Amino acid sequence: MAQWGMMNQSSEDASVSRGRNARGLPDTLKWAGGRDGCLRLVDQTLLPGRVEIRSCTTVEEVWEAIRGLRVRGAPAIGVAASYGLCLGTRGTRHEATEVFRQKLRAVGEYLCAARPTAVNLGWAIARVTRVAEAAGDISAERIWDGLLAEADAIAREDADTCRRIGEVGAILVPDGGGVLTHCNAGALATVAYGTALSVLYAAHEQGRRFRVFADETRPLLQGARLTAFELDAAGIDVTVICDSAAASLMASGQVQLVVVGADRIAANGDTANKIGTYSVAVAARQHEIPFYVAAPRSTFDLSLADGTGIPIEQRPEEEVRGGFGLDVVPPGVRCYNPAFDVTPSALITGIITEAGLISPVSTERIARLVNDAG
Amino acid sequence: MAQWGMMNQSSEDASVSRGRNARGLPDTLKWAGGRDGCLRLVDQTLLPGRVEIRSCTTVEEVWEAIRGLRVRGAPAIGVAASYGLCLGTRGTRHEATEVFRQKLRAVGEYLCAARPTAVNLGWAIARVTRVAEAAGDISAERIWDGLLAEADAIAREDADTCRRIGEVGAILVPDGGGVLTHCNAGALATVAYGTALSVLYAAHEQGRRFRVFADETRPLLQGARLTAFELDAAGIDVTVICDSAAASLMASGQVQLVVVGADRIAANGDTANKIGTYSVAVAARQHEIPFYVAAPRSTFDLSLADGTGIPIEQRPEEEVRGGFGLDVVPPGVRCYNPAFDVTPSALITGIITEAGLISPVSTERIARLVNDAG
Repeated sequence: MAQWGMMNQSSEDASVSRGRNARGLPDTLKWAGGRDGCLRLVDQTLLPGRVEIRSCTTVEEVWEAIRGLRVRGAPAIGVAASYGLCLGTRGTRHEATEVFRQKLRAVGEYLCAARPTAVNLGWAIARVTRVAEAAGDISAERIWDGLLAEADAIAREDADTCRRIGEVGAILVPDGGGVLTHCNAGALATVAYGTALSVLYAAHEQGRRFRVFADETRPLLQGARLTAFELDAAGIDVTVICDSAAASLMASGQVQLVVVGADRIAANGDTANKIGTYSVAVAARQHEIPFYVAAPRSTFDLSLADGTGIPIEQRPEEEVRGGFGLDVVPPGVRCYNPAFDVTPSALITGIITEAGLISPVSTERIARLVNDAG
Repeated sequence: MAQWGMMNQSSEDASVSRGRNARGLPDTLKWAGGRDGCLRLVDQTLLPGRVEIRSCTTVEEVWEAIRGLRVRGAPAIGVAASYGLCLGTRGTRHEATEVFRQKLRAVGEYLCAARPTAVNLGWAIARVTRVAEAAGDISAERIWDGLLAEADAIAREDADTCRRIGEVGAILVPDGGGVLTHCNAGALATVAYGTALSVLYAAHEQGRRFRVFADETRPLLQGARLTAFELDAAGIDVTVICDSAAASLMASGQVQLVVVGADRIAANGDTANKIGTYSVAVAARQHEIPFYVAAPRSTFDLSLADGTGIPIEQRPEEEVRGGFGLDVVPPGVRCYNPAFDVTPSALITGIITEAGLISPVSTERIARLVNDAG
């Protein structure tokens, strides 16, 4: 039973800077303690009932946190993996440089396998690994320091990127209107601000008045638990609905904008995001409601021509069968539990990135914008 | 916590005839004990964890069972209300005829208010009440006997009607294909067989092989709990999915037919059914998958030209907030919980009734078929 009386954070958390994450929440994830430090992250499986900070001191703990959705959201797991590389290679930093580089590659492969769909995971690992590869013939210890600096840079840039996404997208939020979002693409899915929710935070700061409908987002209820929590903490009017109510809500005229995040965007704009996003996109098209994706450029995977190549993570049936500590599906009956679906670009009005809005969505526009110097 | 070890029925249940409901389940609801008897029904809020029979001896208990979804499904609540009228007037059957008739009307109004959307509730109450109104100047006691006989007739006809719906619709089930259904329109929603699921039972009996995907149907999980339970007990291959996964399942080519029940169908074919049905219909149209509604003629409300006049029941927010014994939505955040939505007839390939298939759907065809002598 969620304990509403226990919203106080763990005592450890007193030292957590609220810094850029000024939404009344602790930082989603943050490296603490310098070279011998650890990755501290909010355990999102316990939200909103309990705000608990978890300290990861080994790469295995980071892997488990990613796999177990303690940290989730494409940008956040990219940052977590960057620090995971630091933790996984820290014990090797006094070895020979080549031994260190081999270890780094092995740790990278290990982390990359934690979850298959979000491309930011592989993107961040590749970026940190490049630092080591390019460092030349210096000591492992100095390379390691470079890794930590690069992970810090990724984290810093993520917050800046997200803030910029909000600035780019805010104008799309209809004053006096209703906005529907699915899953959580907020501060809890990134270092700060979020992607889809950054758009709403920015619009709110600009004084626009709007009402948000958050799909609860079965099976793990990131909408009910996380999006509602974040938006409410920020003073934004939010109402939770069952995922299945989104289409009829649109039919009732209460939704003027849909904005969601993304886990991977193919070269043509086809977008993998939390299961149910496609259903929302189909309904939005039926009602001629603009449907926007908000994502940093690191979420694009230009190696895939379209969405058919995006690997879709299958999660355990138990998340559907008994995700609430109850078994509701009769034993012997199977459950099908894909974590993501792919929304074809034809249903996407535009993609909001830190470098500008891509609308209409086309392979050419995407290539131009993503390849632009960041 | 659902107790899978406790599938044994209550001791009372030994006497429950499995009769027409030959699916390994007790009768959904049944009058037992003659003139001084009671209405016995499976408490569906406890399924599939526990199969428990509830005996209603007062109209208040029937009202509570309907309101509290212990008995649900449009045809089943019509039958329950018929017997509720008998229970609510039993104490008045030694009074003057006019006093009895006044009581009957008051009890009818009371029962009718238990749930607003399913028209079968009002339909059954009106039908039983007509028997009393037409009885002329006979004793209240004899009128009451007529009410009980009429309630029995409604129950009997419901089973026959449902079996016939299955016979009419079975041919639509694609051999070797996949069928998606939403909520529970099965034996548990009727006296026996069901509506949408009767189509599947009949196809199964004819030897067609197919796979069923059951939307779990948030917030109360009638699909996960009831449809999966029924179909599995009947030996039909069933897989539970989150409601939000239906559209991407269609995109993957695994669904060749959608069949659902109905709570009220307007004169033009617009259909109110469990929240989420409209979302499924929109997705089915996007993928050019036939979308059928299965319902008895008692579900049509020809007094409403179209679906805009159908009253949509709003259910308590707690069903969304904490339907699993957990509070997942932060306190202070609202939930919006309409129990039904309306699917416009333009999205409905056909309506399967006991008197034949209406396809394409039009006001004229509906009027002709519904007004035909039953």
